[in-house]
Formats: sequence, C-alpha cells, structure tokens
Amino acid sequence: MDTVLRQSKAMCPFLKKASPATLRALSTSTRPQASQCGGTISKLQLLGQRCPIMGKALAVQSARTGVCGAATAVSGLRAFSGHHKAGKAKIHTSRPNEARAVDGVLNHREVQFPPRLPVNQQASAADRPVRPASSSPKFDYDGFYEVELDKKHKDKSYRYFNNINRLAKEFPTAHMANKDERVTVWCANDYLGMGTNKKVISKMQQTLEEYGCGAGGTRNISGHNKHAVELEGTLAKLHAKEAALVFTSCYVANDATLATLGSKMPDCVILSDSLNHASMIQGIRHSGTKKIVFKHNDLEDLESKLASLPLHVPKIIAFESVYSMCGSIGPIEGICDLAEKYGAITFLDEVHAVGMYGPSGAGVAEHLDWEAHQQGRPEGTIMDRVDIITGTLGKAYGCVGGYIAGKAKLVDMIRSLAPGFIFTTSLPPAVMAGAKTSIEYQMEYKGDRFLQQMHTRAVKEEMEARNIPVMPNPSHIIPILVGSAEVAKQASDMLLQDYQIYVQAINYPTVPRGQERLRITPTPGHTKQYRDHLVNAVDEIWTKLGIKRTSDWAAEGGFVGVGVNDGHVEQPLWTDEQLGIDKIADEIKASKPADKSFTEHLLERQASGQVVSAAA
Amino acid sequence: MDTVLRQSKAMCPFLKKASPATLRALSTSTRPQASQCGGTISKLQLLGQRCPIMGKALAVQSARTGVCGAATAVSGLRAFSGHHKAGKAKIHTSRPNEARAVDGVLNHREVQFPPRLPVNQQASAADRPVRPASSSPKFDYDGFYEVELDKKHKDKSYRYFNNINRLAKEFPTAHMANKDERVTVWCANDYLGMGTNKKVISKMQQTLEEYGCGAGGTRNISGHNKHAVELEGTLAKLHAKEAALVFTSCYVANDATLATLGSKMPDCVILSDSLNHASMIQGIRHSGTKKIVFKHNDLEDLESKLASLPLHVPKIIAFESVYSMCGSIGPIEGICDLAEKYGAITFLDEVHAVGMYGPSGAGVAEHLDWEAHQQGRPEGTIMDRVDIITGTLGKAYGCVGGYIAGKAKLVDMIRSLAPGFIFTTSLPPAVMAGAKTSIEYQMEYKGDRFLQQMHTRAVKEEMEARNIPVMPNPSHIIPILVGSAEVAKQASDMLLQDYQIYVQAINYPTVPRGQERLRITPTPGHTKQYRDHLVNAVDEIWTKLGIKRTSDWAAEGGFVGVGVNDGHVEQPLWTDEQLGIDKIADEIKASKPADKSFTEHLLERQASGQVVSAAA
Repeated sequence: MDTVLRQSKAMCPFLKKASPATLRALSTSTRPQASQCGGTISKLQLLGQRCPIMGKALAVQSARTGVCGAATAVSGLRAFSGHHKAGKAKIHTSRPNEARAVDGVLNHREVQFPPRLPVNQQASAADRPVRPASSSPKFDYDGFYEVELDKKHKDKSYRYFNNINRLAKEFPTAHMANKDERVTVWCANDYLGMGTNKKVISKMQQTLEEYGCGAGGTRNISGHNKHAVELEGTLAKLHAKEAALVFTSCYVANDATLATLGSKMPDCVILSDSLNHASMIQGIRHSGTKKIVFKHNDLEDLESKLASLPLHVPKIIAFESVYSMCGSIGPIEGICDLAEKYGAITFLDEVHAVGMYGPSGAGVAEHLDWEAHQQGRPEGTIMDRVDIITGTLGKAYGCVGGYIAGKAKLVDMIRSLAPGFIFTTSLPPAVMAGAKTSIEYQMEYKGDRFLQQMHTRAVKEEMEARNIPVMPNPSHIIPILVGSAEVAKQASDMLLQDYQIYVQAINYPTVPRGQERLRITPTPGHTKQYRDHLVNAVDEIWTKLGIKRTSDWAAEGGFVGVGVNDGHVEQPLWTDEQLGIDKIADEIKASKPADKSFTEHLLERQASGQVVSAAA
Repeated sequence: MDTVLRQSKAMCPFLKKASPATLRALSTSTRPQASQCGGTISKLQLLGQRCPIMGKALAVQSARTGVCGAATAVSGLRAFSGHHKAGKAKIHTSRPNEARAVDGVLNHREVQFPPRLPVNQQASAADRPVRPASSSPKFDYDGFYEVELDKKHKDKSYRYFNNINRLAKEFPTAHMANKDERVTVWCANDYLGMGTNKKVISKMQQTLEEYGCGAGGTRNISGHNKHAVELEGTLAKLHAKEAALVFTSCYVANDATLATLGSKMPDCVILSDSLNHASMIQGIRHSGTKKIVFKHNDLEDLESKLASLPLHVPKIIAFESVYSMCGSIGPIEGICDLAEKYGAITFLDEVHAVGMYGPSGAGVAEHLDWEAHQQGRPEGTIMDRVDIITGTLGKAYGCVGGYIAGKAKLVDMIRSLAPGFIFTTSLPPAVMAGAKTSIEYQMEYKGDRFLQQMHTRAVKEEMEARNIPVMPNPSHIIPILVGSAEVAKQASDMLLQDYQIYVQAINYPTVPRGQERLRITPTPGHTKQYRDHLVNAVDEIWTKLGIKRTSDWAAEGGFVGVGVNDGHVEQPLWTDEQLGIDKIADEIKASKPADKSFTEHLLERQASGQVVSAAA
C-alpha cells in the first residue's frame, strides 16, 4: 500500500472502514434514477456528496464549473487512493467501469464485513435519515459475530487459551485444568519468580488482613491511600524521577498517557518505533494526533523523520527498551541525543526490563550507566535524560498494574487529565503493598536477575548447539523461529501434551505472519534438569515436525536474524563483569571443557561455591 | 455550533485540533511568495493542498477548471464550517479578509493551547517538512504542563486526593496518613463492605499461598487459569448469559467492548445516554463510529433518534442502570422495547448495581423481574433481553476488575479482537478467586443489600427532615446538592477536619458545573451512631457555610430535582415487600411515632427481632 493511500485511510473514516468489495460495488453499480446532471452516477458519488469534506468542496467546484460536482468528487476519491502515483489511473471523470481500478490498490485487504446487506440496500442505508420501512430487515448481529470469528479460524489466528495454574510452592510448575496434571511453565512473564516470593505473598496477606480486599473507589473518591503514596514514592525513587503515577495496568498507563499528551499538546507529532506494543499504538491512535512510524531501532530513519518536522512543534518519541517478542533492545542513548537535538521528549516503555536490568532493577536505561547508578549519581545519566518511563508491576515484579515516572508537573498533568486514570477504581491496597515490597526486594538483591541471565545464556547456548533457530538478541527473551502459525501451534501443543512443557505459540497479530515463533522465558527457577528437558523436547519436536533449523535458514540467506552470517554476534546486555563471572569465564575458556556448554559449566562451578557472583 | 460544523470537526483531524486563533491566522496571513496562480494564497490554502482528501479533490478540480484549485478548497473548508447555513458566508473564492468569518462559528471555544508560538512561526510549522532553522525555539514542554495545571487550579477542578486507609477490622472506619487519626468513610463504592468480608479475605489469602501473587502473563500467554474460567462461569450464571469475559477494570471493559463493536460493525451507530460514564464515552470515541447522544433516561428522545436511522444499520444503545452521581435509574425495559423495534442491541452498564439489586444481586435488570429470577426462570425477562451487561468486581463485590456478559459468540468475538483485553496481564488469581467468592456470597445472602437499603432510607429521611437538599432518586446513592466547586470542597474539608467524616466533594468534570455535590454512600456498617453523627455534621456545616437548603432551592423553583414540588415522589426500587418490611411498616405508620424517623424506628424493631426481613 503506498504512502498516500495509507495516509488517506488513516484520515478518512469512510476509506478506513470500507472493504475493497464495498468500494468496488459502490463504484460500479449505478442508480436506476438518472442524476440531476442527466447521466447516471455511482453510489460512491452519492456518498461523496454527503461527506462533509468532499461534499462541500464539490459543491464549490460544481458552482464554479457548472457541472455535476459529485462526479469529480469520486474521481478525486479514486485519485487519492494512490492510482495517480502508481500511474494506473488518471484523473478522469467517473465512468463506472473504470472504478474497478480501485481493486489494484485495495485487493490485498481482506473483505471486512461479509454479513453486509446487498449493495442496493446498503447504499440506501447511507441515505438521509428516514423512518425505516417495516419491510427492511434488521442487522444480523449474530451472523456478524460468527463471521468475525470464522475469519479468525480461517487465518489460524483464533486463540485457544491453555488453563495454566502456576503453583507458588512448585515454581516454575503449574497444574492444568486437572489438578494432578503438572507442566513446567516456560513462557510466563513472571521473569524472576517474584509472584511466588514469600516476602511479597506475606506482605499481601497481611495487607488483606489489615486493609481488606479492594480500594473501594477511584483515586479521587476514597481510593487514595498510603499504599498508593508509598508505591509511587518507591517508583519515583527507582527511576530517579520526581514523581510516578500508578494505573491499573501498563496497557492503560501507555494508552492514557500518550492519548492525553498527544491530544493536549498543540499539533503534536508522535514518532513511534515500528515494533511498539499495542498499548502505545492504541494510545497514539486515541490521541488523534499525527503519528510517524520509524523503522525498528533505526536511528538514521528516526533522525530523518525528526529533521523533517519544524523544531518548535511538540514531538514525542515513543519506544521500548526490551521488545518482548524478539528481545531486541532500543538504542536509548541515541534516541535521547536525537530528542535533544530536535526538541522532542522521550517516552520509554521499560515493561519487559524493570526488575531485570540495572543495579536497582530500574531497567535498561539504568543498566547503561551501571556505575553511576550504583554510586547513587543519576544526574546526567541516560535514565535521567529520558522524559517519561513506563513500567509494569505485573511481570518481573510478579503482581499486577502499571505506572509512569517523570517530572512532577508532567505526572500531575496526566493525573489531572487522563480519563483512564481518573475514572477507574484504584488497585487493591494488597496489590500495591505487594508490588512495593517486590520492587524494594529487587532494588537490594541482584541474585534473581543474575540467575535469570545465566539460565538464559545456558538455554540459548544449548539451543544454538543443537541448530535450533534462536532469534539472536542481547536480552533475556529466547524467541525460536517457526515461521508458520499452524506449525507453531502444533509444536506448542506437542510440548504440552508429550513433554509437559508449556510454551505458548506466538502468532499473528502479536508477531507478523511468517515470523511465528515459540517464545521462551527462563527464570531463576529453571534449573538444569528443566533446561535439559526443554532443549531435548524442542530438538525432538523440530525433527518430528520437520521445522527448519538454523542451518536451513542460513542456506536461504537468513531470516529475522536467524542464520545470518554477517560476522555480527549479539552480546548480552548483562556483561560477564556485571555478572561477576569474568575471571572464572576466562579460566573455563582456557580449559575448554568439551563435555557441556560453557554456561552450564559455569553454573556448576557457581553452585559449588567457586564463583563469587554479583548475586552475593 | 451547528450540526455540519460538529460533524466536520468530528471527521477532520485538522479542524478538530485547530483553535479559532490558528484558523484565523492561517486564513488572514499570506505568503510573501506569489502562488503559482499569480496571486497570493493563504496558508490555509497551502494546508488544503496538502490534505490527502481536499488536496486530491482540488487537483481534480484544478485540472478541470484550469484555475488554482487551492483557492476553492479553502472556500470549501470555510463553507462546511457552517457559514453557508448560517447565511453569513456564501460560497466564494477565498479573499483573505473574508476568512475572518470563521470566528463567528468558533469563537465560543476557548483557546486550547496558551503556550503556543506567535502566529507567524506557528503557521510556518505547517509548511512542507524542512530541517528546522537552528534559531527556531523548541517547544516548551514544562511550560505546557504548567499551563494545563494552572487551568485546573483556576477553575477549581484541580483535585487534591485524601489519604484514606480503610480498616478491614473497623469498617467503615479508616485512618488518615497519620495512623492514629480515624475517620468514618461515607463515600466509598465498597457499598456492601465486601472488601472486608472474612470469607473473601480468607479466600484471597489462601489463593495467594497456593498460586502466588500475579497471573504472570496475558490471558493468551500463561495468564489463563482456573480462576478466570470459574469467575467467568459464575458471572455468566449470575446474569443468566451464555458467557462472560473479565477485564482489568470495567473502565477497560466498556472502552474495549464499545470500541471493538463500534469499529467492526459496518456503519454502526452508537446511541448514548447523555449521563453515561467516561469509560463508555471513551469507548465510543475510540470506535471512531457515529455517536448520537439521547437525553438522560428519555425514551421519547431515544425513539426519535432510533427512528431517524435506517432499520438495517447496526445500532448499539449504551446506557446505565444506576447513574452513580445522581442515583437515577435507567428505563431498561423501555429501552429493550425500542431496541427490538428498531433493530438495535443494548449495552447496559450495571457497575453501580451489581451485588446491590435483584434476588441474586445481578443488578437492576434482574431486580425488575424479581419473582421470575427467584424461581430460576430468566427466559424472557428484562435481563434476558439485554444483549450486553457490563459490571465491576471493584464496588459492591469489594475487589477489583470488570467484565462483560452476553451471548457466547459476542463474548468470543470481543475476546478475539479487543486489544484492551488481548494485550494486558490478567488479574491476579487471588483477585479472581476473591471476586468469585464475593459474588457467590451475595447470590446466597440478601442481608447486606437489605441493610444497605434500610440505612440509605434512614439517611435520606433524616436529611430531608432537616431540609438538607438530597437529590431525589430511587437508588442507594445520596447526592446532596451544593452548587459550587469551592463550597463543596469546603464542606468536604470541614466534614473531615471537624467531624472526622470523609465525604469527597464531587466537582466538574465528574458532574456539570453548578451541580457540585456531596455524594454519600451508606453501607450495612453505617449503624445509627454513624448516621446520627453524619446528619448532625452536615446540618451544622450547611448552617456555617450558608449552603442552600431544600426550601431555598424550592423558592427558586427547584433545581436538578431538589425543591421541585410537582407531586412526584421517587419510590425506592427496593420495595417494602422486597425488603420484607411491608407488614411492620403499615403497623408503624398506623402508630405514627413522632420521636424518630420512620426507618430508624423500623430498624430498631428489626434489631430487636420483631421484623423478619428478606435478610433472613
């Protein structure tokens, strides 16, 4: 789809919603009555006359030219659908048979509303409001729901939820619907097992005892309490920001904050990384302001887009630190540099990084200035330069909820203006107290994220040794490329049924079609026996299902990082030094043990007390 | 603002965001360079050329007429701003000095962005993308935040949160920031005190012990579990629907469901009660579809609007059962009748009614067919006829979270398509288990809602006896009219500081300006000593602050129901019979006790075991 069409679709509610079939039908069919111009006009022309934008412009045109304006209107509509660029359609008067050219632009989009009425009835629906004739049929709601679901089934994007009950005392094990059926969970976002942390559980239980279950109201009406104050204080301290604000989820935090900023700042432009999470995409959409997508992690592309905008226009660069489905890491410092240069503010989603990176677990931005933060000098660091950080309490911190952190005035403005914050019940006191305990625990103790990183390294190494196509990245995410929705689900089902391993298949729309994958997330609890079992199971399934291995992708020239032999090796963000394994690593490398992978060897030595790690 | 302008503003992102000042500036200022047509053209014309809709239409026009299209484009833009209707501007070529007419339409809107740049610089921002000159100043973000906050301070809508820590063992008492400072909470939405219910607390504690703190993922990726399955099963049963779906809040449930339905159903129209909650308003806005607001609870107005739409067009009627800020109750049956007649579906928000009304606590829709539901015959009842019911787990059920209930296919479609459901972490297992326990408790036991209703009656009676302006309604909400943001806050502060009573002032934007109020919500725990203390305090404050009493409002002809003497008396939805007090009520009425209010008398007799209530 070319840029003009994409822009037009984004701006015109009609174009956005009309399916190619509808457009075609509206363009080719003619009204039985002759138009006031003497000829016949298409239904699209009639619609064009009623559009408050096209209609008025064409009234003007008609007044000036003395011909039937609507005809030209529709030509215009077709023209901006991209044909004039593609050279397939010229600016012309609307002859119905030429309208089929619209197909060329739109036919890759699926027909969106199959249960529509026949074209004739449909067009009359768009006529001026009239009392419906009693013979006219009502809309078939049930049919509509069914067709929407059928589409999901047909393109294999229909989702079947697995009933997974993660057991606090048997982490990382869960039971299925049947209580006796145990599986190992290998894909949760409770990255550090904090959801089963005894201190957090006990804090929540005590808080329930003392303050009850729910908050009892919105923050403004009886739902504000010491738990909120303390949690927001802890979050502000964690990110070395003036203030923080807690939301029911980070989906809501991202949505509400971007929507509020984008809609309030005059002529605001939001520059959004192409792999941004749905919550940011929705927030930008809801802001109603201009959005410019830049290529994933591409500073050059971002700069060219920033440079194309006047300096004084407010701009927000929205991006993530760890992209959860591929594990790539955003170039935070480079983006801060560009933001400064071009007068933008930065909106950084650290959802998959908080608790996991940095000396206090504040995320990747903190990790990048390890020394400074460890010494309590945040001034001038990358984290300090980021304007808005958003995070979650529901992943590495093991609870639920989301937040933003930034300058006090900014946070106060969002607090005062965002409907998604104002008009909703606060998180329960116990959840807020638990989250605070969890954050503080991780601020003090690095052992969990150390072990999480080591287990990640071990799994990646072993998978790579077995020619399993891990998508390379510097983070704790292990995406394994499958490349087919159906096969990914098969592999996931097989893991569950035959190996008691739960790894959800990640299909469209979470990832693009053709890039379907298994996404594995090790935790500190995934010790050697679990890892061995996982790697063996994946290896066997890859053979059984004949799924492409790394060498197969390499033979095809590589795909999404897999099998790409360009000499570039992704180094983990957590360095050997940060993990406190640099010296012992050198020793092991020198002795070259052939019996097991390097990290397994290291973990064994660590277990036997020979490694004094960062965790200590 | 006339309809055409309103529609245009809703459709055109530029018109929507442009302030009157901007439009004026763009229309009157001219470019120093002569246009390609030989004359000078306004900046608005240049913008028009770059609009993907106007631009292409005008290229067509220009090609046909051989004159400079942009000039006419801007005329069109002005024309659809409503002037041609008002007769103040005709369709004409664009002479810059005529463009000032735009003022006439827009000047009642406040200038939205005070920290804007001077007009000349601003207009250049709209020119074709160029590398900004280094002399150009960057946008002043901090200044912008400050100005937005200043506006809130100036119009007294800035909110100060009270630190309220509701104590599970001293319900309805809370402590303030200082642990020793006790207050009675009179405005929470934990209507039945279920947040302090021992069974619910203990269920949550056990679930924490067994299944940990957080869900660990989205519903699709490891966050689906037996707690979700069971809670949704219970909710479907509660509302006698095929299925239910749980969201992080009912704000999200309403937003996500309306946005999804409205955007997916072709040419959908959403008819929305004028007092609908912010979450529904946002959902409709986010759907991008057509919205028609009907007068609050006005079936006639709704019917005229339904009748103006073609029968086959999909329509959603979105409304509430209990409107939380005034306590009015929606005409559910009448709306169902109209929906059937005009081929619409009904979307009923029962957020403030679930747990509170009906033999199972399913809400007002259930309450209206008490007998049928008590006998387990939901078929053909009003609740059965409602298509989509939404509710919360965070108010009468004392926890947190929201849901929808309806036909299986509908629920499955929302589950499959709504980003606000798909891309967010599930509620914690303990919250879902607690909510289920709470719902089941209220399905079995009517005592809490019986007592809640009795306490509401008692407070209303006593307030009315003291000439305090209670806004009359048939529900459990007690709104007391103040009529000024400043005085409402003063009254609330005074209640807190001088009487240790917490009742939040309700100001704009939650209620319209001039209708500021105190909103009191009795619970089963608000026994006689609390009620007496409250009524005395309010009475004294009304005197101290000289706030208008019912008789004052009556002298002015009445306002929002207060002091309106039209002979109509609001009867509570819970009848004497449903409360099981009909016989004893007759007795008391006959004996006419003068010493205390009727309901207080009744409650005393009930306490002494003389009344066998519905609670038994």
